[in-house]
Amino acid sequence: MRFELQAECPHTGARAGLIHTAHGIIETPVFMPVGTQATVKGIPQRDLAGDLDARIILANTYHLFLRPGHELIRKLGGLHHFMSWPRAILTDSGGFQVFSLSDLRKVTDQGVLFHSHLDGDEHLFTPESTVDIQFALGSDIMMVLDECLAYPASHEAANHAMRRTVDWARAGYRHYRRRVEESGSESALFPIVQGSMFGDLRQTCAAELIELDAPGYALSLEMTELTTPLLPRDRPRYVMGVGMPEELPEYVARGVDMMDCVLPSRNARNGYLFTSTGRVVIKQNRYRDDPSPLDANCRCYTCQTYSRAYLRHLFQAGEILFSTLATLHNLTHYLDRMRQIRQSILLGGFQAFLDGIRSAAVE
Amino acid sequence: MRFELQAECPHTGARAGLIHTAHGIIETPVFMPVGTQATVKGIPQRDLAGDLDARIILANTYHLFLRPGHELIRKLGGLHHFMSWPRAILTDSGGFQVFSLSDLRKVTDQGVLFHSHLDGDEHLFTPESTVDIQFALGSDIMMVLDECLAYPASHEAANHAMRRTVDWARAGYRHYRRRVEESGSESALFPIVQGSMFGDLRQTCAAELIELDAPGYALSLEMTELTTPLLPRDRPRYVMGVGMPEELPEYVARGVDMMDCVLPSRNARNGYLFTSTGRVVIKQNRYRDDPSPLDANCRCYTCQTYSRAYLRHLFQAGEILFSTLATLHNLTHYLDRMRQIRQSILLGGFQAFLDGIRSAAVE
Repeated sequence: MRFELQAECPHTGARAGLIHTAHGIIETPVFMPVGTQATVKGIPQRDLAGDLDARIILANTYHLFLRPGHELIRKLGGLHHFMSWPRAILTDSGGFQVFSLSDLRKVTDQGVLFHSHLDGDEHLFTPESTVDIQFALGSDIMMVLDECLAYPASHEAANHAMRRTVDWARAGYRHYRRRVEESGSESALFPIVQGSMFGDLRQTCAAELIELDAPGYALSLEMTELTTPLLPRDRPRYVMGVGMPEELPEYVARGVDMMDCVLPSRNARNGYLFTSTGRVVIKQNRYRDDPSPLDANCRCYTCQTYSRAYLRHLFQAGEILFSTLATLHNLTHYLDRMRQIRQSILLGGFQAFLDGIRSAAVE
Repeated sequence: MRFELQAECPHTGARAGLIHTAHGIIETPVFMPVGTQATVKGIPQRDLAGDLDARIILANTYHLFLRPGHELIRKLGGLHHFMSWPRAILTDSGGFQVFSLSDLRKVTDQGVLFHSHLDGDEHLFTPESTVDIQFALGSDIMMVLDECLAYPASHEAANHAMRRTVDWARAGYRHYRRRVEESGSESALFPIVQGSMFGDLRQTCAAELIELDAPGYALSLEMTELTTPLLPRDRPRYVMGVGMPEELPEYVARGVDMMDCVLPSRNARNGYLFTSTGRVVIKQNRYRDDPSPLDANCRCYTCQTYSRAYLRHLFQAGEILFSTLATLHNLTHYLDRMRQIRQSILLGGFQAFLDGIRSAAVE
């Protein structure tokens, strides 16, 4: 994996670049659709590549580890082959889901002991094992295991979790380098900058992780503005779990290159649709006989083909097609917005673009 | 609507033809995917036209009457426009659903009084009102209201229901002709031959309905073999709710031109998949690590792209994409089979085709 910086905004931290992977080139800044269980819910892979032109998607290590199992996926040729997705894949470490979904048993310096939310079986994630799982999946960009802390946290607790995260990153990296030497794998591994809301901890964490000379760095979304300047300019920065459409340019302005979030797809399934003129809650009675497209400014198949009245009918009737059409639209909204952002950076107009978004938000 | 007979099998009752409608030409024999609530569950309209090349779909009058309402659909330009489906649409009369789904109140000579299965509201379907509803939907081929009888029925009960069905067909037709004169509509109306398992009743019913000089006739699936010879050779014959894949050529052999069934789509969603080598119940553990396509002889996107192992994973994980991919396959299986049947009739090889199917079934 190689990051090529193409342009920087002279007024903000925004950057445009290219990430070269074994599965294609990713234009940054990029929004990555979430494909938790080896599928972006409701979207066939041909539409993900065609309609959406997604260059990279995210898959969840925790979920795939439990079902169908990373060894099965390895046996079937890796995740790209298993799900017929020839473009890039980023996997998380599984840590976030272990801390949020599973019945957590014990966190030690060695790793995390947990019970599956599916069948209660006990499993152990270690910095080494999560690297091995992600190698089995064959993802292009892997994440190191980190300790996720609940908010609010004391300085002491945050420091403890940060220290463990750094230790795990080192352990994960040692293991990763051995595996790369053996296999010649081109998978990249990103450490995760933690430190909760404490600037000094973020600073220490970043400094120590930079010593790993990683090809890219991930950060949790708190204190992004303070953290990105601590990271090397020539490596991509990935903020996990971001965000609302109007937040995307804000993160870009703070020097973020990669983002992902379940919001566009999950909200779509729940009937919350993002448009160029604001949110549409499709179940509302006002859309009952509305013949206009969901978003007159959107190029997506849904907006080019169907009315709000039809979409509302599908939603009210509980039809599967609603999820597909709504997800296609919301993801188009996110990805097109990110492409506009990228264009504005390349053409030197990002500050004006950002000002436009901000003043529209105030109105 | 105009039916053009192209070829007849010299050994069986099989026929190939074309139905010319205001929304395109339908090649017969034809299998019509069911789009109950103005959507073929899980399939975007572009794939219905593109991948499947469906020329006509079926929609349910009862469901659309209740939700979103036929007046709303009329206001929005009719069903074709409402659901963005430019090809032909056939609607049933709503009778079958009233008799099977709703809380039935009373059947009189005037019509059927029932309570909605959605909200309990009381409604009345008459031979005239169901024609009006279908005109509001703007379907290309409409059905008259018939009285659906539970099996088994006595000769007396069957005779009574048959007589009422004929009376309703006459009343519906009188109303239909008035409406056509006023509006110049090109919608066709098919009467339905009833008579339960009693040959004499079928015969009487067919003879009386033929006097209506309808452009086509529907029949319930019992005693098809006995009924089709009673119907005019130059009008298409539609058997409702048929059937398993291996039954399609059998109905064609008995002179049936049009069929529909929820089986391919409903079974798909439940993980029952039809293939050229037999049924696949995808949840079975044997498919867990099966890298082969669902059906190596199928041209559909699902079979061209994904493995049985991936499809099983999607099914087990409860993913929406499973329904879409499975429905696309099962419908392709049905529509391609029907296209093969049609080709064999046109080329004079239907008898051999049928023999092949029958001996495969015996093996």
